[in-house]
Amino acid sequence: MEVKIFCPATVANVSCGFDVLGLCLDTAGDEMLVERTMQPGVRIKEITGANLPLDTAQNVAGVAATALVEKLHPPYGFDITIHKKIKAGSGLGSSAASAAGAVFAVNHLVGNPLTPKELVHYAMQGEKLASGAAHADNVAPALLGGFTLVRSYEPLDIIEIPAPENLYVAIIHPHIEVRTKDARAVLKDRIDFKKAVIQTANLAGLISGLYTADFDLIGRSLHDVLVEPLRAHLIPHFSFIKKAALDAGALGAGISGSGPSVFALAKGNEAAGKAAGAMAQVLEGTGIDYEIHVSNINPVGIKIV
Amino acid sequence: MEVKIFCPATVANVSCGFDVLGLCLDTAGDEMLVERTMQPGVRIKEITGANLPLDTAQNVAGVAATALVEKLHPPYGFDITIHKKIKAGSGLGSSAASAAGAVFAVNHLVGNPLTPKELVHYAMQGEKLASGAAHADNVAPALLGGFTLVRSYEPLDIIEIPAPENLYVAIIHPHIEVRTKDARAVLKDRIDFKKAVIQTANLAGLISGLYTADFDLIGRSLHDVLVEPLRAHLIPHFSFIKKAALDAGALGAGISGSGPSVFALAKGNEAAGKAAGAMAQVLEGTGIDYEIHVSNINPVGIKIV
Repeated sequence: MEVKIFCPATVANVSCGFDVLGLCLDTAGDEMLVERTMQPGVRIKEITGANLPLDTAQNVAGVAATALVEKLHPPYGFDITIHKKIKAGSGLGSSAASAAGAVFAVNHLVGNPLTPKELVHYAMQGEKLASGAAHADNVAPALLGGFTLVRSYEPLDIIEIPAPENLYVAIIHPHIEVRTKDARAVLKDRIDFKKAVIQTANLAGLISGLYTADFDLIGRSLHDVLVEPLRAHLIPHFSFIKKAALDAGALGAGISGSGPSVFALAKGNEAAGKAAGAMAQVLEGTGIDYEIHVSNINPVGIKIV
Repeated sequence: MEVKIFCPATVANVSCGFDVLGLCLDTAGDEMLVERTMQPGVRIKEITGANLPLDTAQNVAGVAATALVEKLHPPYGFDITIHKKIKAGSGLGSSAASAAGAVFAVNHLVGNPLTPKELVHYAMQGEKLASGAAHADNVAPALLGGFTLVRSYEPLDIIEIPAPENLYVAIIHPHIEVRTKDARAVLKDRIDFKKAVIQTANLAGLISGLYTADFDLIGRSLHDVLVEPLRAHLIPHFSFIKKAALDAGALGAGISGSGPSVFALAKGNEAAGKAAGAMAQVLEGTGIDYEIHVSNINPVGIKIV
């Protein structure tokens, strides 16, 4: 028995939702094949598309799957094959896709005893290996689809927020390295109270816009006054990329996760395509390679293919 | 020609929405009579229930009405009579009720050229006189009803958020003085980034709960990690009042505006009544006078009576 799944890329933070908000993509993601075996344990059988450890304990999919296996004690083992398409360090939730995919597949192969929301905790164990902290802002949208809010970690409280049907995402992934650790290092322990209030207002506006499909409000709310100003310099040409997306009609744009990918939200597939093209244009001739993605918001997360 | 209106009390901040969120009450508020006169200008004719200045330029209703008159240049004047029932300094938007009522009435008496949302700016001028800052978090819910979010001041961007039908508010107003100025003085210019992130998550959770009528989520989100810890000591017995409301079944509780009133949200009129009673019980025998209110969320704001 085996299952083949699509493990979607995700955009965490989404400008004003630093560390708490994430969204799920539909056209960018890894593929994973998980086979149920009689031999107990979790094994990473093969990884294509990336040079990642096959040692279960050193692999995010391995660690996440093991965490779930230790909970469920199934009378089986699992062989995992991963075809990485989301590059590690892209800011598109590469490790989250593997961690979320692994727990989704294991759960599926033992009869779905846990809900997708209950799986978030186990996927987070993979994230812990990848970044040192058990974040949920990528694994939650990967498992649940749409937008997700991590309202609280203790206890874990994940809120699913629906996306308007016509909301699309444009992504540019410049092929440069921004290490999560470095992106964290520029953050400040103490911040201006006034800026925090502005951030709360924008996030509340974004949530409101998502519920009411108010695209203008979504756009007006997509501002990050806390983190983007500290991280923008880590991404070459960031301000020009962002401006190009906005000039091309995007509702708003910002850093995807901790970068270097930049996302823009747009009303409709065509507008998102224009935004992606405009962002790409900025990097033409700079010597920086890149790839672009245009996607609807994936309403369901991981899919069996 | 004249108009008699009900000017509702309001709860600003609502725990996790410091400075940006407010809600409108239905059973507590002032009454105001505004007469259209041939004599130009704005006059405060009479105030009952409070010792407030009759000088137009020193009265929040007078200042707000004047700001609107200067915009509209109507060929009339206005005589304002105010029956104050919301006490100044209660934390229930007393000055906002007067400012919002004045602009609502003037606008009504000249044929409603402005929308309620457009009136917010003019009502804010009254608030400026009262507190030194042109806040909108009380005047917006007074004018628009329901919950309102001040997403931005420049430009002014007020978002109306619907309340679940069965959401009720319990209020206790201890008759002690907490001056807005003192309540502002305890705030810090710089705060923990981590706490700011928690606040954003809770506000996003509250907004989500309001849209989906998820009472549990509303309750789980009603936490203020930024301001309540700094202000709680200004309100005698605050922690006991809050605990009493929660023990009585309230979804959550916190400081109304800058206090001293304490609000609790509850599912249903009966539960709100119980919460109000439990909060009152705490102040019995302490020598502190108080009054309580139980109200639905007023969906429309100011009403012609």
